[in-house]
Amino acid sequence: MAVGLHPPRNILPIAGVRLGVAAAGIRYANRTDLTLIHLAEGSQVAGVFTRNRFCAAPVLVAQRHLADGSGVRALVINTGNANAGTGAAGLQAAEASCQVVAGQLGCAQEAVLPFSTGVIGEPVALAEKIAGVLPSCIETLAEDHWEVAAAAIMTTDTIAKACSRQLEMDGVTVTVTGMAKGSGMIRPDMATMLAYIATDAPLHGAALQQCLQEAMERSFNRITVDGDTSTNDACILMATGQAALPPISLATDPRYGRLRDAITAVAQWLAQAVVRDGEGATKFIPIHVLGGRDAAECLQVAYRMAHSPLIKTAFFASDPNWGRLLAAIGSAGVDDLEVDGVQVWLGDTRIVRDGARDRDYDEAAGQAVMAQEEIPVRVDLGRGAAEAQIWTCDLSYDYVRINADYRS
Amino acid sequence: MAVGLHPPRNILPIAGVRLGVAAAGIRYANRTDLTLIHLAEGSQVAGVFTRNRFCAAPVLVAQRHLADGSGVRALVINTGNANAGTGAAGLQAAEASCQVVAGQLGCAQEAVLPFSTGVIGEPVALAEKIAGVLPSCIETLAEDHWEVAAAAIMTTDTIAKACSRQLEMDGVTVTVTGMAKGSGMIRPDMATMLAYIATDAPLHGAALQQCLQEAMERSFNRITVDGDTSTNDACILMATGQAALPPISLATDPRYGRLRDAITAVAQWLAQAVVRDGEGATKFIPIHVLGGRDAAECLQVAYRMAHSPLIKTAFFASDPNWGRLLAAIGSAGVDDLEVDGVQVWLGDTRIVRDGARDRDYDEAAGQAVMAQEEIPVRVDLGRGAAEAQIWTCDLSYDYVRINADYRS
Repeated sequence: MAVGLHPPRNILPIAGVRLGVAAAGIRYANRTDLTLIHLAEGSQVAGVFTRNRFCAAPVLVAQRHLADGSGVRALVINTGNANAGTGAAGLQAAEASCQVVAGQLGCAQEAVLPFSTGVIGEPVALAEKIAGVLPSCIETLAEDHWEVAAAAIMTTDTIAKACSRQLEMDGVTVTVTGMAKGSGMIRPDMATMLAYIATDAPLHGAALQQCLQEAMERSFNRITVDGDTSTNDACILMATGQAALPPISLATDPRYGRLRDAITAVAQWLAQAVVRDGEGATKFIPIHVLGGRDAAECLQVAYRMAHSPLIKTAFFASDPNWGRLLAAIGSAGVDDLEVDGVQVWLGDTRIVRDGARDRDYDEAAGQAVMAQEEIPVRVDLGRGAAEAQIWTCDLSYDYVRINADYRS
Repeated sequence: MAVGLHPPRNILPIAGVRLGVAAAGIRYANRTDLTLIHLAEGSQVAGVFTRNRFCAAPVLVAQRHLADGSGVRALVINTGNANAGTGAAGLQAAEASCQVVAGQLGCAQEAVLPFSTGVIGEPVALAEKIAGVLPSCIETLAEDHWEVAAAAIMTTDTIAKACSRQLEMDGVTVTVTGMAKGSGMIRPDMATMLAYIATDAPLHGAALQQCLQEAMERSFNRITVDGDTSTNDACILMATGQAALPPISLATDPRYGRLRDAITAVAQWLAQAVVRDGEGATKFIPIHVLGGRDAAECLQVAYRMAHSPLIKTAFFASDPNWGRLLAAIGSAGVDDLEVDGVQVWLGDTRIVRDGARDRDYDEAAGQAVMAQEEIPVRVDLGRGAAEAQIWTCDLSYDYVRINADYRS
C-alpha cells in the first residue's frame, strides 16, 4: 500500500559501519528480527529519543550509555517486542542485551546502545534470545548490508526504507546513508520510529548534535500518521570519520551547512517514506501552512488538519470536502484568526478565497487533485510571514483493520 | 449501531413550548428537515455556541439576535445544509429565514433564532425553501411533538435523542425536556451538535446563563467522538416560566441547585446519547482520570486517550492493549509525570500497577471487560486530588465508511 515508494536500491556503504542480522525468534519464528550495527573505533554518535513519559527500557539505557561518553561501538536492535511498560525487569533485559553484545564484540557494555520495537508491555527473555543467535549475526556483519538491515527492523512496515546521498567536499567524496522503520504511532517528536543515519564525514561534538537536531526539525519532527507518540522512538546519527577530511566540530565550520543539508535530505526522505508507508495509507499529503505570525501557529493549524479523522477519511475517499478543512483551521486554537484572510489550495487549485468558497472553484478541478496519490494542501492564514511544512497520510479501512488486528 | 440507546419514550411536554416539522427538500426529498420551536411570550432563552473561528452564518445571526435582548419567540432549525463557509450570502440566507418565520408568526425578526446542520460550504436558497413549507410546519405546532422534532433534526444520527426529568419544587411539578442531534465532528467545546433543552421553571437572567454553562461543563463539553469541532454547534436552554413558581433569578436562590441538577441530568443523558450514537460506534467508553494536580491535566490525559486512533481501534477490536493506553498517558503533555505512580483499570480490573503491568493481571479478565458494550477506563495519576470524567466511543470500519461516503 506504500504510496509512491520503491524498495531500497543503490544504497551506498559507509566506511566504518558494518551491519548484520539474524532470526532470534523474539515474537515470530523464521524472520530476521535482530540487527547489529558495528562501528569502527573513533566513530561519533548522537541521538534523539521519544519524549513519552512511559519511554521504553532500551530508550533509558541508550540515553545513559550515550551520556557515558566513552564512545559507542555497537547498536543492537530487535523487533517483535518493544520492552516498554516492563518495569525493572525490562531495564535489566536491556542492560543484559548490551552485556551479551559487549562480551562477544570485546567492548565495554556502555559502548552498546539497545533499541526495541514491537508490542508494548509483554515480558520477554530478550538477552537470552539475542545470545542464542548473536554469533551467527556477527558472522554476517558487512558494510553493504543496509538493505537486509532495513528489512530486519520492520514491524507493520510494508516496505524497507533506506536511501543515500553523496557530496564532494574539498575533493573528497562524502557519503550519507540512512534507514528507518515505522508506519503507525507516528507523530511529531517522533513515533514508533527508529532511524539510523551514518556518514563517513568527520562530524564531531557540538556540530554532530546540532546537525541531528536541525535535520530532525525538518524531517521526523514534521510527520504524523495517527497523532500517537510511541514509547520507543529514536533517531541516531553516526559519523565514522573515515573520509580523509579534517574534523568538523563546530556549526560555524564553512563545510557544516552542506553536510547538514545532505543529512537532512536523507532524514527527510526517510521521514516521508514512513508516512508514505503509514498504516493503511493510500494518499501522501504534504501540508504547507504559510502567512502565520509565527511557525508555531502554522504548525498548530497544519497538525490540526493532519489529525482530523474527518479530513483523513475525506482524503481516503478522494473527496474535496473543503468544509472539513475550514472547520479544522477554525478550531486550531488560533483564537484571533480573521477567517476573511484565509486562502486554501488543493494542489494548484484554489478552493477557498478570503474565507469562503472561491467563486471560480470548480468541483471537478478539486476532484482531479484529490484523485492523485499525492495531494498537496496549502493554507495561507494571511496574517504574517511565518510558515511550516508537514507530511501526513489518509485514514482508510486498512488503518482500522491493521490496528484492530495487531496483537492477534 | 447506537450503543445501548432506545428511541425516545415518555417524553414530557413543556408548557409554553410547541414544536412543528416539515419536509422542505433542502437536501433530500421526502424527509422532515425543518423544525420550528415556538415559545410562549415571556420565555427566557440562553445559548452557548461553537468557538470555531469558521462558525456558520446561523451561529452569528443567533448570537446577534440573542444579544438583542428583545426576547426570543421562535427557533428555526434545518438539516441538510450547515450554511457554513458561505460568506455574505450565507448571512443573508440566515437573516432571510428569520424574516420569513417572523412574518408568519407575527413577531420581530430578532425574536427568531436560526440553526443549520449538514454539509458545509454548499450554497443554498434556504429562506425560499423554508417559506414554501412554513405554513404547513406551523400547522403541526404542538407541545407533544418533541419526538418528531428530535427525528427531524437528525443528520448522520441513527436514532432520535430526547429525554425528560421531573422534580417537585414547593409542591409544584417542574419538568425539563431536551433533544439533541450529532454523531460525528464531536469534541469538547461542542460539536456538530445541536441541543435544545426546555423547562417550565421560571429561570431568569444570570441564573439561566449560569445554569446552562454549569450543565455544559458536565455534559456536552465532556464528550468526543473524533476530536473534530464543528462550525455549527449550539446548545439552547429555554425557560417558559409556566410553572406556578416565583422567578429564580440568582444562582444563590436555594431552588437553583436542584433545578440545575435536573437540567444537567438531561444534558448529560443527551451528550452521552450523542457519543453512544457516534459515527460507527460499537462501544461506549467512559474515561475517568483522577489523582491529578488539577482538573486541566486530568482532562488533558483523558482526551489524549479518547483521541488516540490506536486506542479507539483497540476498543473496536475488544483488545485490552494496555500498552497503547500507557503510551497515550505518557505523551499527554504532563511533563513531570512520574510513571511509577500511575494505575490503570478497565472496569474493576487493574491492568497497570505503579506504572507497569499488574502482576496479578490476567488477560482473560481484561478481555472480559473489553467484550462489553460499555468499557469504563479509570486512570489514577497518583499526584493530586483533582479528577475529570469524559465519554467517548471506539473507531470502527463504519466510521471510515460513513465519513468517506458522506457527500456522495
